[in-house]
Amino acid sequence: MEIPTGYLPLIAPRLAGTHAEARWKVAALGGGHGLSASLQALQRLDTALTAIVTVADDGGSSGRIRQEFGGLPPGDLRMALAALCDDTEWGRTWAEVMQHRFTTMPDSPGTLDQHALGNLLIVALWEMMGDAVNGLRWAGQLLGARGTVLPMSTTPLTIEGTVLKAASGGLSTAHVVGQEALAVAARQGSVSDVSLVPADAPGTPQALAAITEADWVVLGPGSWVTSVLPHVLLADVRQALQAAPGRRLVTMNLQTHTEETQGVDAAGHLSMLGHYAPELRIDAVLADPDTVDDVERFKDAAAALGATVFFDKVSLRSGEPVHDPLRLAAAYRDVFEAVEAASA
Amino acid sequence: MEIPTGYLPLIAPRLAGTHAEARWKVAALGGGHGLSASLQALQRLDTALTAIVTVADDGGSSGRIRQEFGGLPPGDLRMALAALCDDTEWGRTWAEVMQHRFTTMPDSPGTLDQHALGNLLIVALWEMMGDAVNGLRWAGQLLGARGTVLPMSTTPLTIEGTVLKAASGGLSTAHVVGQEALAVAARQGSVSDVSLVPADAPGTPQALAAITEADWVVLGPGSWVTSVLPHVLLADVRQALQAAPGRRLVTMNLQTHTEETQGVDAAGHLSMLGHYAPELRIDAVLADPDTVDDVERFKDAAAALGATVFFDKVSLRSGEPVHDPLRLAAAYRDVFEAVEAASA
Repeated sequence: MEIPTGYLPLIAPRLAGTHAEARWKVAALGGGHGLSASLQALQRLDTALTAIVTVADDGGSSGRIRQEFGGLPPGDLRMALAALCDDTEWGRTWAEVMQHRFTTMPDSPGTLDQHALGNLLIVALWEMMGDAVNGLRWAGQLLGARGTVLPMSTTPLTIEGTVLKAASGGLSTAHVVGQEALAVAARQGSVSDVSLVPADAPGTPQALAAITEADWVVLGPGSWVTSVLPHVLLADVRQALQAAPGRRLVTMNLQTHTEETQGVDAAGHLSMLGHYAPELRIDAVLADPDTVDDVERFKDAAAALGATVFFDKVSLRSGEPVHDPLRLAAAYRDVFEAVEAASA
Repeated sequence: MEIPTGYLPLIAPRLAGTHAEARWKVAALGGGHGLSASLQALQRLDTALTAIVTVADDGGSSGRIRQEFGGLPPGDLRMALAALCDDTEWGRTWAEVMQHRFTTMPDSPGTLDQHALGNLLIVALWEMMGDAVNGLRWAGQLLGARGTVLPMSTTPLTIEGTVLKAASGGLSTAHVVGQEALAVAARQGSVSDVSLVPADAPGTPQALAAITEADWVVLGPGSWVTSVLPHVLLADVRQALQAAPGRRLVTMNLQTHTEETQGVDAAGHLSMLGHYAPELRIDAVLADPDTVDDVERFKDAAAALGATVFFDKVSLRSGEPVHDPLRLAAAYRDVFEAVEAASA
């Protein structure tokens, strides 16, 4: 990558709360690649944007950082920050640097291999600021991020669940603890009774406030069990979602039947959400038409949550099951405008 | 540290080569805290500034990174980048983040403890860009650095020397290999026959060009043996310094008789420089008057290098032996103008 000559980046990050004139205040909930997709889309609209992120990861670089420092896992927070970097060469390079993972020599005496640089940047700011929320706000400032990133809770969480799988002579159930273990076990069976420990961990006050103040709360896309459901499993966040005066949108995944949700179609994903949050009302469900086989069944599942379904082609033209940030931005704008117009 | 409300950083880094209208093109040579002091001063003048940095460190975070990745030690390069960060809250915070060192839990299973975040950022960019010089240029861009940071060589170097010390019944000499070992041994004796391995490592072409194009080359302050002398020990750099058509300034340290140079006064420091680079001519020597006991002897040592001595109070008012960036900037400006006026 060459350095452009005379390159003068001009950075004016839109901070939630300082961008009072934004057209839409949006709180986007999720984790991992799914939240990254919604943030890359929403930062392209005129939004005051807050990302609210799961903190139950215990695998990979994040898991090792939990063991070394004892605080929150930074991985999903890092992906959200990278997704909020500006679409300029400066911002895109920062996003790449945040996501970069080290490759050490084969005989390396240390443990830097495969750590993500962005995870270490976040940990440095947590140590400097002594506070997870303020450290993340500073990370956003330093990167010129187009929004604020908050953990759903400042308490490190553990996710657990029951996995039901075929065994010789019938079915077996296993209680599985930890996000990484649950993701592995889910490949061989179906997951139920998902919960967070501690179940009464407080939601981050700034995250609860962002949900309450949002014109739109956007839930998903993302790994349904480990990135989306945790937001309704934590009582504080679930209650804030249920009580929020704004509107609620669920973004469906481009792939159903994932490793975490084998045999569960798009309608089934909505039913899972209803199962864990029976009082949660949804205004709109956004889905790519290619991902829904039985449209009527899907519409019924959405209606059970109170929601209208909006279909839009939001994947990359390449055919990969990856959201196109610009198409998804257009779809969000259209849904926001349609729902607002219908009630005007 | 609180987040300022409505804070909109405006960053326009001055890249060497793209800042053609600068009053002075300056190449600053050194390493560690000394180079950091000259850079913090020179970035406050209207300069197109290039830092040229030693790469023989093998201790601490840098030493462990050499063992894990096999490339250059990033530590002195990191300090130079931090010194070039803007004097705004955004830039000062980036500088702090670059310098931040991790503190892991006592029973940590990993090796992140005491690594400097900035070292890891530089390594990430080296891996991404596949090139030490381009990686550092990008680091400067991302941080909004007010200048360019270059390694003196892209070959990792080892410094070695002879340490002469008192032993029972007389004197003993020891050949010491490595910057950390040399710094330790120097506390107990005097250092001579300092050299770099490999002695014929090529200078970084962009660094040699910056020396050749500079209006002013600034050498020091800094640890004389491990940060200043290496620049004249590498043949390529020494020859570029000798042949440079611009002017050359040596900045003296605020403390003589340091651990590395016990019993060597200010004049002795200049003589050491002349010993290792007999053909190098110097135009000006800048010293704080408090650091020179024998003024005539010092002026004579400077004159032996062809240099005029300029005295200026450049330390912090607190009395700490630390350069004040603004006072040092004023002193550099005055010396530059005086020398230029004298030959006009």
